[in-house]
Amino acid sequence: MTNTRHHFLDIFFYPESVAVVGASRSMMSPNFFLVSNLTDLKFPGKVYPVNPNAAEIMGLKTYPDMKSIEGNVDLAVISVPASKTMDIVRDCIAKRVKGITIIAGGFSEIGSGGKKTQDEILSLLREPGIRAIGPNALSPINTANNFIIGFGAAVEMPRGGLSFIFQSGLYQPRLNWLISEFHLNLNKLIDLGNKMDINEVDALEYFGQDDSTRVIAMHLESIAGDARKFLRLLDSTTRKKPVIVLKTGRTAAGARAASSHTGALMKSTDTVVDAALRQAGAIRVQGLDEFLDLAKVFEYLPPLRSNRIAISSFSGGEGVITTDFAQLHGLTLAELGAGAEKRLRPLFPPWDIPLNPFDTGVASQFHREKDIFGIIGGVYADDPNVDCMAIQMAGMQQLLTGASKGVGEHLAEAFSQAKKRGKPVAVWMTDPSGEGGEITRVLEANRIPVYPSAERAVRALGALYKYSVLRGRL
Amino acid sequence: MTNTRHHFLDIFFYPESVAVVGASRSMMSPNFFLVSNLTDLKFPGKVYPVNPNAAEIMGLKTYPDMKSIEGNVDLAVISVPASKTMDIVRDCIAKRVKGITIIAGGFSEIGSGGKKTQDEILSLLREPGIRAIGPNALSPINTANNFIIGFGAAVEMPRGGLSFIFQSGLYQPRLNWLISEFHLNLNKLIDLGNKMDINEVDALEYFGQDDSTRVIAMHLESIAGDARKFLRLLDSTTRKKPVIVLKTGRTAAGARAASSHTGALMKSTDTVVDAALRQAGAIRVQGLDEFLDLAKVFEYLPPLRSNRIAISSFSGGEGVITTDFAQLHGLTLAELGAGAEKRLRPLFPPWDIPLNPFDTGVASQFHREKDIFGIIGGVYADDPNVDCMAIQMAGMQQLLTGASKGVGEHLAEAFSQAKKRGKPVAVWMTDPSGEGGEITRVLEANRIPVYPSAERAVRALGALYKYSVLRGRL
Repeated sequence: MTNTRHHFLDIFFYPESVAVVGASRSMMSPNFFLVSNLTDLKFPGKVYPVNPNAAEIMGLKTYPDMKSIEGNVDLAVISVPASKTMDIVRDCIAKRVKGITIIAGGFSEIGSGGKKTQDEILSLLREPGIRAIGPNALSPINTANNFIIGFGAAVEMPRGGLSFIFQSGLYQPRLNWLISEFHLNLNKLIDLGNKMDINEVDALEYFGQDDSTRVIAMHLESIAGDARKFLRLLDSTTRKKPVIVLKTGRTAAGARAASSHTGALMKSTDTVVDAALRQAGAIRVQGLDEFLDLAKVFEYLPPLRSNRIAISSFSGGEGVITTDFAQLHGLTLAELGAGAEKRLRPLFPPWDIPLNPFDTGVASQFHREKDIFGIIGGVYADDPNVDCMAIQMAGMQQLLTGASKGVGEHLAEAFSQAKKRGKPVAVWMTDPSGEGGEITRVLEANRIPVYPSAERAVRALGALYKYSVLRGRL
Repeated sequence: MTNTRHHFLDIFFYPESVAVVGASRSMMSPNFFLVSNLTDLKFPGKVYPVNPNAAEIMGLKTYPDMKSIEGNVDLAVISVPASKTMDIVRDCIAKRVKGITIIAGGFSEIGSGGKKTQDEILSLLREPGIRAIGPNALSPINTANNFIIGFGAAVEMPRGGLSFIFQSGLYQPRLNWLISEFHLNLNKLIDLGNKMDINEVDALEYFGQDDSTRVIAMHLESIAGDARKFLRLLDSTTRKKPVIVLKTGRTAAGARAASSHTGALMKSTDTVVDAALRQAGAIRVQGLDEFLDLAKVFEYLPPLRSNRIAISSFSGGEGVITTDFAQLHGLTLAELGAGAEKRLRPLFPPWDIPLNPFDTGVASQFHREKDIFGIIGGVYADDPNVDCMAIQMAGMQQLLTGASKGVGEHLAEAFSQAKKRGKPVAVWMTDPSGEGGEITRVLEANRIPVYPSAERAVRALGALYKYSVLRGRL
């Protein structure tokens, strides 16, 4: 464990022994992956599959019920239908587990009948002091020990500094893509579901204290508890690390579609929510694309304390669009210094065109793209008027000619000096996880995030600055 | 030609003979592709490469200059440096070409010197009445005859109903991706560049009259001529077909980055521009992602005269986000009728959860996804309260099990009845041009557009409705 202080959520992220109740031998069942991910990815703790109709699952001895397990069980992951959950919870109490996760839906979210069962489960757990995630929650994930609970074959996850709090499984259909293609560097993930016991305050507090979590990205539909307490905690957490908040149910229709069990904050108008989150120093986002883009940028790059951007694009028109979005997202077009002017001007014929945004398309009619990127990378590194950079990658054809290996490496090298001087770079290209996949992989391994459009690249850089503005660190 | 009326722009899109001045034998030169695209894609007209240092290019007899060409030349595509352009223009006049396209930059956009040369070229052309695209423009494209002018190897383009007007080459780095992966069905494209002669009014008028153009997507940085005339033309054009406008230079910085040669409209504040465009019935977009998304949706689908949407997602959380965005983009959550309730409710355990947004993730715990999509497709087709649908695709694993062929076909079939009844469907999935590429290809061949996020799917559907609102067709 990376934390010296203990927190009751430790047992959910670092269990030494896990029972999986409802484990399945059938690959057609989502429950299959609850065990197979742990064995495939070599989770180091003990794993006890529980299933009365199997003797062995994924090579592991399988138990008919909780009480047959010989050893202690830190955490029970329960994935049986709602109607059978109560009995399993009783077994878990008898077994003296320390924590449980209830995956199945069919509780408070389906109406008063489900709510009643959920309340009964909660009161059973209160007495022995067993803490619970869920119900209606698919989690947790911890990349430090490959403790990956999910419905689907998980990929190997390189450990990063980003921890997620979700209120529902919306990450699940795209999890592998986020890791393998989008290159999110995950630390931990918790899906809170119905928040019967453990809620957003617990999760935020935990990730706030967790040294290996450098960025928190939080999806919220409702506040389970005291909104003021949540906002105070949010405020103190954002003073330590960036917190990105995707609060949904923004519109009346969306709010109705969200849980009806909302706290005071969430009954306010969206404008009030917005102001409260901003005052607490959180970066609020509007949709899932933005949520993931910003989660990535804060994990990859340090906050920006000054906001002057240098832009390079492959057409003047795209430079204009990028400039528009840069300004809308709080950035200012850098006025390049005399030194930059002196080094960039010779890239063009003696034309009196602006150098920021820089038109790589025009320059590439006179110079090799490889050389151009080397030069602008150096200029931006040296110019004290440049704080960050957004660079369009295109015309790969020319860059690739005679150099089919190493385009990503070349670009990363071109901007390495700027990055060393604390100037973040974001790249955009049309198809980052398709044709540009290998270039993206190399750039992102060098902490240069790649986005599919100029708008998304500068929105991400703008957020790095917004964080400093919100937290008064300019 | 598809038009009975003649227009002076016909010669640019349907030339019977084309001289390419500056043609190159070297694949390292962008000019190589000016000829190779025409021969590779079998442009049916005559092609005369002009290059004093080559006898043959791409198997075609190559001429040292314009005057050596034996036959008539309808269109001269001129791609030589700015400094040499004037002489070539004189040759073109002597050769009595009907139109010219000047690709090189280095004219009005670089300052007063370039402006002077450009003005001289224009006055030379005025007397013989030769019309010109550019300078600083890479176009045109016509998919009807594979007349594709571009810097890079073009792909075969299936002909569609979408025609583009660009003011710069920002489409160029992504053109093949837009055709092959994004499945834009292009009709024609014109890049106007510096608009020395032919401008946005000419192009809009031409595409407005062109029967094979069903949708116009227009990128504008400036208005070359009379803004009122442009707005009147825009208004009459949008009464016939949708026009999407990406007007850039929205911010002060963006406007400075754009051309300084802006007309009256563009000197107005962005709010005024916004109102003027809306009043003229144009769909204004903010960025390139939105521009392309909407260009696609209008080419794929008919406008929506009513706005009640049915949503199906793989988690409740994603349903809430989608509902938020649907409402923000002018759509209303459909209240499903009693018939729909009767058919959808049995997909769940006896849970009292909302059926719109429909939680496919929960239903798939009890039924096969194949069956679920078939059922909801039928329900949405039959329910008179549903006008359009946004459907999340995920959990491909389950759908694919035992049916690795035909997932796209199955989905297209599931929603075919709804589509027959004039109810548009948009699908979103995480990686439409990567892992989901084949499913996307099949769906889009069936005119079901696929987007990478819920936000983008409902934004596109919302635009279909917005067009009817703007044009009073509810």
